[in-house]
Amino acid sequence: MNLNKKFQKLVVPVLLAAGFAFLNERAIAQESEGYPKKPNFIIIFADDLGYGDLGVYGHPTIHTPNLDRMAVEGQKWTNFYVGASVCTPSRAALLTGRLPVRSGMASNKSRVLFPNSANGLPLEEITLAEQLKTVGYGTACIGKWHLGHKEEYLPTNHGFDYYYGIPYSNDMDLTRKLEGPTGYWDLWTKEYKDLDITDFNVPLIRNTTIVERPADQHTITRRYTDESIEWIKQHKENPFFIYLAYNLPHVPLFASEEFTGTSKRGLYGDVVEEIDHNVGRIIATLKEEGLADNTIVVFTSDNGPWLKTEISGGSAGVLRDGKGTTWEGGMREPCIFWAPGSIPHKVVMDMGTTMDLFSTFSNLAGATMPTDREMDGVDLAPVLFDNGKSPRNAVYYYRGRDLYAVRFGAYKAHFITQEVYVSNPKRVEHDPPLLYNLDVDPSERFDVSEKFPEVIAEIKELVRKHNAKMVKGPDLLALKEKAK
Amino acid sequence: MNLNKKFQKLVVPVLLAAGFAFLNERAIAQESEGYPKKPNFIIIFADDLGYGDLGVYGHPTIHTPNLDRMAVEGQKWTNFYVGASVCTPSRAALLTGRLPVRSGMASNKSRVLFPNSANGLPLEEITLAEQLKTVGYGTACIGKWHLGHKEEYLPTNHGFDYYYGIPYSNDMDLTRKLEGPTGYWDLWTKEYKDLDITDFNVPLIRNTTIVERPADQHTITRRYTDESIEWIKQHKENPFFIYLAYNLPHVPLFASEEFTGTSKRGLYGDVVEEIDHNVGRIIATLKEEGLADNTIVVFTSDNGPWLKTEISGGSAGVLRDGKGTTWEGGMREPCIFWAPGSIPHKVVMDMGTTMDLFSTFSNLAGATMPTDREMDGVDLAPVLFDNGKSPRNAVYYYRGRDLYAVRFGAYKAHFITQEVYVSNPKRVEHDPPLLYNLDVDPSERFDVSEKFPEVIAEIKELVRKHNAKMVKGPDLLALKEKAK
Repeated sequence: MNLNKKFQKLVVPVLLAAGFAFLNERAIAQESEGYPKKPNFIIIFADDLGYGDLGVYGHPTIHTPNLDRMAVEGQKWTNFYVGASVCTPSRAALLTGRLPVRSGMASNKSRVLFPNSANGLPLEEITLAEQLKTVGYGTACIGKWHLGHKEEYLPTNHGFDYYYGIPYSNDMDLTRKLEGPTGYWDLWTKEYKDLDITDFNVPLIRNTTIVERPADQHTITRRYTDESIEWIKQHKENPFFIYLAYNLPHVPLFASEEFTGTSKRGLYGDVVEEIDHNVGRIIATLKEEGLADNTIVVFTSDNGPWLKTEISGGSAGVLRDGKGTTWEGGMREPCIFWAPGSIPHKVVMDMGTTMDLFSTFSNLAGATMPTDREMDGVDLAPVLFDNGKSPRNAVYYYRGRDLYAVRFGAYKAHFITQEVYVSNPKRVEHDPPLLYNLDVDPSERFDVSEKFPEVIAEIKELVRKHNAKMVKGPDLLALKEKAK
Repeated sequence: MNLNKKFQKLVVPVLLAAGFAFLNERAIAQESEGYPKKPNFIIIFADDLGYGDLGVYGHPTIHTPNLDRMAVEGQKWTNFYVGASVCTPSRAALLTGRLPVRSGMASNKSRVLFPNSANGLPLEEITLAEQLKTVGYGTACIGKWHLGHKEEYLPTNHGFDYYYGIPYSNDMDLTRKLEGPTGYWDLWTKEYKDLDITDFNVPLIRNTTIVERPADQHTITRRYTDESIEWIKQHKENPFFIYLAYNLPHVPLFASEEFTGTSKRGLYGDVVEEIDHNVGRIIATLKEEGLADNTIVVFTSDNGPWLKTEISGGSAGVLRDGKGTTWEGGMREPCIFWAPGSIPHKVVMDMGTTMDLFSTFSNLAGATMPTDREMDGVDLAPVLFDNGKSPRNAVYYYRGRDLYAVRFGAYKAHFITQEVYVSNPKRVEHDPPLLYNLDVDPSERFDVSEKFPEVIAEIKELVRKHNAKMVKGPDLLALKEKAK
């Protein structure tokens, strides 16, 4: 056995390459004083991945070496939030930089859009793609859309030059007959192995045309990545923005032959490890194409783990509860920023949200922020590139159209809590609100409302100001088309 | 702002230094075919630190850059266990390589040793220090002992050339009068800020002499480290073994002035971050002294978080329950192996235990394993240094003198479960046992005993064989001395 050869082959090149990459990029960075100018942006958005599902976020049996390395080379954010705890509103928040209740992508009657939904993200909304196009970016949306499957609402009508993907969740267009009231849940917990891609007749769309139905979900993660890589190679001469939204690890779980049965965590782990592998392919492409020094990659997920699907769902790690709720497990996500040319390594405990990407990237690209509407993002550049603090001091946790909780600094007040994915979910209004110190008590175990009435008063004042400026859009999720 | 300077100053040197360290060490490693010969060993043992309490194990607000870096340069083990879920038996297991019920350091009447306990670790037991002394190692125990405070049982009578530390838990020798049945717990949850080091009249011992009482716990982490560094410098010419057992983050929590109030996680975080900083000092010393290529450092903890102490206790992250129980949170710990000269980076999901350190280190040092007694460790070298699998396929979870649970491969069977730290803890015997697949379900949420009777049969056969060879020592923890 020759250990040295192993070191030489495996470890040394990684370390040296990383070290030298920084050295080489010094020259480039030195040219521009200040933040990077017109870098490329790649947002990689997983589906239903929990806070605790990556190695570097503490999962004991899911192996994610590529994302772990990105976190070590770049920034691991530990207090990063999405705009809602379910798919459609969370995606609307990311792309518009606004709370989804403003755009109408939030409802108390329908959590998300369905294949028979009549509406989509209104065309009056400005997406990050439209914003970046104003300053000459090429834009591609690859993957799950879920902001309206009718042609007028597809990505190509929302600022993306190109679209390739499944327009909604991969569990929709179910062709199998469900039995009994728990039939849907039984799919994931009892009969999982019997499922086939033909049970989910979801379309795969290129631009506005269906090119495959049912989409072969076994290969969908790899194919989204192939498309992204090809698109990068074709568009690398100009600044670009790719929104790469994997449909997985949302149920149904399908992995390719190469990954099926390889993870200790079972099929869920196979699927996450396949995503990790494919994220690694994106990073490798950026390096090969000489783009690593001028591209910012962000990896995060749309909402917390779908706990109700049991072992077919993920884990929120130390955080409480999951998808669909306004507990931390529902809305706090892993988030890794990677840009070896400009983003220095650190673990960031400041607050950020997906809505902040709109403001941050707009400013870096030189695009003018909209002034005719209320925006909910802040510019994270001082934290990303420098030793500054995040300008964000609050997070608003909406469920449907109602404000359930507010985080202000370390403290989070729950005004309403409600169960989810049960029949007759119990909804409780709290006055005084439940109060948790999330820095000290990230699992929301110890209500300290009695100890800190002054914090509650501050948060109530914040809510008053927030509500005063809040103009809610119409409920655009509820209206369904008649069955044909 | 000049970003390049920042990169150059902060990131590049770390990466390059690490890369070159490997290159330099090639020469050394090439000399010896196979595993390292007679390396130095440093075991750093924290107290009551939970599986989820380090950054690299997923804690969102505890900043542990030194341990995180060790995990990236070395190996992060995610299925590493201790020999018991409380202090005394866990420490006995580590030092003897045997389940504590064999040595008598396990009891159903007293969880651990107390300042009025009559006994200690029997002198007939062979400690890892004694073992390494047979092949010429210098040995030092610095920190918490908790295997008998009477002179005959102190480290200097158990194979250590040198001892400096508090001989038991830092919450013992309580001088404050407790009020009511919850008085002890109130200390941590209600009156914490009032506590002073004089409330805990614990002695600090050098070799066998008390040198300070009460020990100044504010500076104890730093002083243990100072002593270790000094001892390394004095003994670096010959192979050495240091067992550095920090008394913290066990309650009472005391940090130095430099660290108090600096962590987002509150005092518990301050204390863990101070340990992280001091571990970094050990690593820096090894590098400065040219010992990094020939020293194996292991960092782990004695048992899971003491959940009953609320925010004064740690977190088991994704794992269930904590200290005192045989759920995963009680006995699975963070474990980082670091030895840039010989241990290549990987995340290890194989099983290991603290008892395996005895066998592994004995073999590396060339010491002959005892043959006159049952040993419970395996040699982890194939995993540490090569691409081999861990020889360990089972873990036995004892509580006191009884076997509560057994892990075999991915499956864990609970034959008994019992509450802890409540009055009249409920004890439940399970037949069939509860069965969890820990790889797929690390939080022990889904009992699969009905689905896998054949696995239960296998585990029962394993238990039968285990019991057939088990010779339990006398209960040495129960006997107390009369009050003077």
